[in-house]
Amino acid sequence: MKYNFELKRKSNKNLYTQLYENLKTKILKGELEAHTRLPAIRNIADKNDINPATVVKAYDLLERDELIYKKVGSGSYVSPGIIENDFKLDSKKDKEKDSLEMLDYGQIDLADSINFASATPSPSFFPVKNFKYALNKVLTRDKGKAFTYQKSQGYFPLRESISKYLYENKIETKADNIQIVSGAQQAIDLLAKVLLNFGDEVIVEEPTYTGALSAFRSRKASIKGIKLEKDGIDLNVLEKKLKANKVRFIYIMTSFQNPTGVSWSKKKREKLLELASKYDFLIIEDDCLSELYFTKEKPLSLKSLDTEGRVIYIKSFSKIFMPGLRLAFAILPDKLLPQMLAAKHATDISSAGITQRSFDLYLREGLWEKHLYEMRKLFKKRFKVMEETINKELLSSADLIYKPKGGLYFWLKLQNKYSSEKLYKKSLEKGVAFLPGSLFYHDNRESNKFRLSFAASNEEEIKRGIKILAKNIKEIQANSKNKGYTPLL
Amino acid sequence: MKYNFELKRKSNKNLYTQLYENLKTKILKGELEAHTRLPAIRNIADKNDINPATVVKAYDLLERDELIYKKVGSGSYVSPGIIENDFKLDSKKDKEKDSLEMLDYGQIDLADSINFASATPSPSFFPVKNFKYALNKVLTRDKGKAFTYQKSQGYFPLRESISKYLYENKIETKADNIQIVSGAQQAIDLLAKVLLNFGDEVIVEEPTYTGALSAFRSRKASIKGIKLEKDGIDLNVLEKKLKANKVRFIYIMTSFQNPTGVSWSKKKREKLLELASKYDFLIIEDDCLSELYFTKEKPLSLKSLDTEGRVIYIKSFSKIFMPGLRLAFAILPDKLLPQMLAAKHATDISSAGITQRSFDLYLREGLWEKHLYEMRKLFKKRFKVMEETINKELLSSADLIYKPKGGLYFWLKLQNKYSSEKLYKKSLEKGVAFLPGSLFYHDNRESNKFRLSFAASNEEEIKRGIKILAKNIKEIQANSKNKGYTPLL
Repeated sequence: MKYNFELKRKSNKNLYTQLYENLKTKILKGELEAHTRLPAIRNIADKNDINPATVVKAYDLLERDELIYKKVGSGSYVSPGIIENDFKLDSKKDKEKDSLEMLDYGQIDLADSINFASATPSPSFFPVKNFKYALNKVLTRDKGKAFTYQKSQGYFPLRESISKYLYENKIETKADNIQIVSGAQQAIDLLAKVLLNFGDEVIVEEPTYTGALSAFRSRKASIKGIKLEKDGIDLNVLEKKLKANKVRFIYIMTSFQNPTGVSWSKKKREKLLELASKYDFLIIEDDCLSELYFTKEKPLSLKSLDTEGRVIYIKSFSKIFMPGLRLAFAILPDKLLPQMLAAKHATDISSAGITQRSFDLYLREGLWEKHLYEMRKLFKKRFKVMEETINKELLSSADLIYKPKGGLYFWLKLQNKYSSEKLYKKSLEKGVAFLPGSLFYHDNRESNKFRLSFAASNEEEIKRGIKILAKNIKEIQANSKNKGYTPLL
Repeated sequence: MKYNFELKRKSNKNLYTQLYENLKTKILKGELEAHTRLPAIRNIADKNDINPATVVKAYDLLERDELIYKKVGSGSYVSPGIIENDFKLDSKKDKEKDSLEMLDYGQIDLADSINFASATPSPSFFPVKNFKYALNKVLTRDKGKAFTYQKSQGYFPLRESISKYLYENKIETKADNIQIVSGAQQAIDLLAKVLLNFGDEVIVEEPTYTGALSAFRSRKASIKGIKLEKDGIDLNVLEKKLKANKVRFIYIMTSFQNPTGVSWSKKKREKLLELASKYDFLIIEDDCLSELYFTKEKPLSLKSLDTEGRVIYIKSFSKIFMPGLRLAFAILPDKLLPQMLAAKHATDISSAGITQRSFDLYLREGLWEKHLYEMRKLFKKRFKVMEETINKELLSSADLIYKPKGGLYFWLKLQNKYSSEKLYKKSLEKGVAFLPGSLFYHDNRESNKFRLSFAASNEEEIKRGIKILAKNIKEIQANSKNKGYTPLL
């Protein structure tokens, strides 16, 4: 490969854009074959008399486009399977970016890291074969109808199947109260649109899910966080806030919360419903993971206790299934249905018919329950391995804040208030990714907490990754002591 | 079938809800077989001592659920194919509601009408076989990766194919400037989110597309309409408005506009770009139908003339393809890309991967071009038949406001300012649906104009339907004269 790229300094294009486009063309034309090692950054920089940072930028763009992949300590290589116009992208390790949380990190490619950041399973666990069966059955059955506009509220038979599924989970609701949406994030965003006016007060658990915070912020809500304890938020603090100000709604995850893994106690759930009635506010219950229980009984939802229609229940089908499917639903009280429908209609008219129809069949034929059973089995093993390894390797330098009974996360904190951002950066260099705590606070304040997810790592990687983390923490602590490091407040 | 339903007057449920649920259960359990005629409304009303309007309401709900269908002048029947839990809904005529515009009419079922209202082709014209091929090829190739989160900006190879397709249409843009969205409505909604603040001024063509109006309204924009002439809006009026007030953007359809069929002249296009530069505003160009040209040459887009990056170009792939697919894209100037990406992410994270990947293949293998060729052939025939029949049957009582050269619509007005709402109601009773003009004005004012679409009707239906309209108009005119009807102002 030539190292000189004839970059034009007087062009209206940046040097890094020129370099990026030049390399991209070479890769797409097949001039650079799969697994070819790209020149070292320093070499290109020297030969072209440009700053190494310029080369780094160009390589980052190529990596973002999935045209190259990086190996830690070894350099960058051309991705395999890129032949002419057929971008068959197949990273060797079956791992994908969790686009949601990666956005917060500029969509960094984790293809060659041990990934404790992603909250979704590796694609190899997706039930592609069964879903393909459902897709084809629907296409043969419904033909063109599968591709007409669906009703904005959602495909009626799917709403019927969901209502049946909910009934088995102790939630009684009619198909008429179910709104189909394109993923839980859309449900949250639409609810923000329907419920929030400028300055309305919203209560969230602290810490909580980033995506919800950004939806509420975009509606200019005033967001108040209440510290999440081992059995739910502190309801005395909540009641004080309720007395001081009108609250529009509270947004919570009652089982295996993201990021803490906390499940609300029955007592606090009941008390919360009482408060909602007394102070007249709504509760948005976001149920991502309740199917991933590792004890004997599936946790019930808050919605199942709701007699006054105060709980708006959101359930994603895609999160532990196949996130790219973009399918979720919300249960709404009668009076909010028309507004939600109008919001959905003005947003994207309706969710895709083929997805709704295929997933309906998938539910009806019992494939969903079967998939959940398999996922529980798989994740229970990983859960135990991660728990054991944390106990063995990490507890001398970090504390496990909460011992979850299901879900996908462990929520930890570094002792002596060392910043988890520091650990994050250091660990990423060593090929281990996770999410630092600051992501889950609405003011993004630096934190000593962090979240480890076992969704996308196998048992061997869990053991290896946690050992690397333990080593990194010790090094940071040793360094900091030498340099008189001031811990976080 | 029994006529008595044991309705409870003291229940907390409405009588019509009770009747609806009762009948629904019977249908779903199979107690009422497919094509069974439901009792006449008057019979149920009499036997149960309830108001006939209550029965009508219950029947409407069943129809909305696609559990029954109506035959004009004959009554209501149980839909076929509803067996236990398998809701195989197959109306005899292969027609579907155009959910978008039907919402404005409370989602009335047009299954047994001649449908000049729908703007999308009958499902029987959808290229289901080819798309099924693409879906399966992608599933075999990409497996689980087809169902991971896609990047929020969209699947990169799809953006590449689109950029190539655009290049053939004289638009030069990089994949990096393309944002994939779930349908054109989402593009409009996201742009409203990104661009509009409370009270910002927006200019639209008058008349224009309802969905755009509702997206702008939801952001509390101040919407100003400028009358659409035969070659675009009056640019002198526009310049006066630009001098008086800062305008954020103008929303237009440059080819085969909805509802008028108008295409902007080259002269007005160029002048509009000059004004945009002089007064510093953006132009949103919504290109729904430019592929449906019936003359020799495909019309160019305004975007192809845009040298300053002032035109945001929206293109739906689903509108004349398969609307339920929910797939479109927007081309954005560099500076708006990050905001658009953030808006998409906060709205629904990303569009479904399987759809993006399959459509990418569909484009790459030339199936899209082939489909467009077939659609042009089909619609050109219908276009000619509708044009001829309008000339022959309607021109004595209505005027063709504009003679389009492509697209799917004819825009007419009733002579002597008779209201098209009246014609709409009368025609619906006689089994002919279309859209009255009021829908396309931002103040929804009553109008003598109306839109006839030939998307969902075959040649025989076009001829028959227009004859019915002609007859209805004459009857209305005769009646109005007798009653001293005052025309619209």
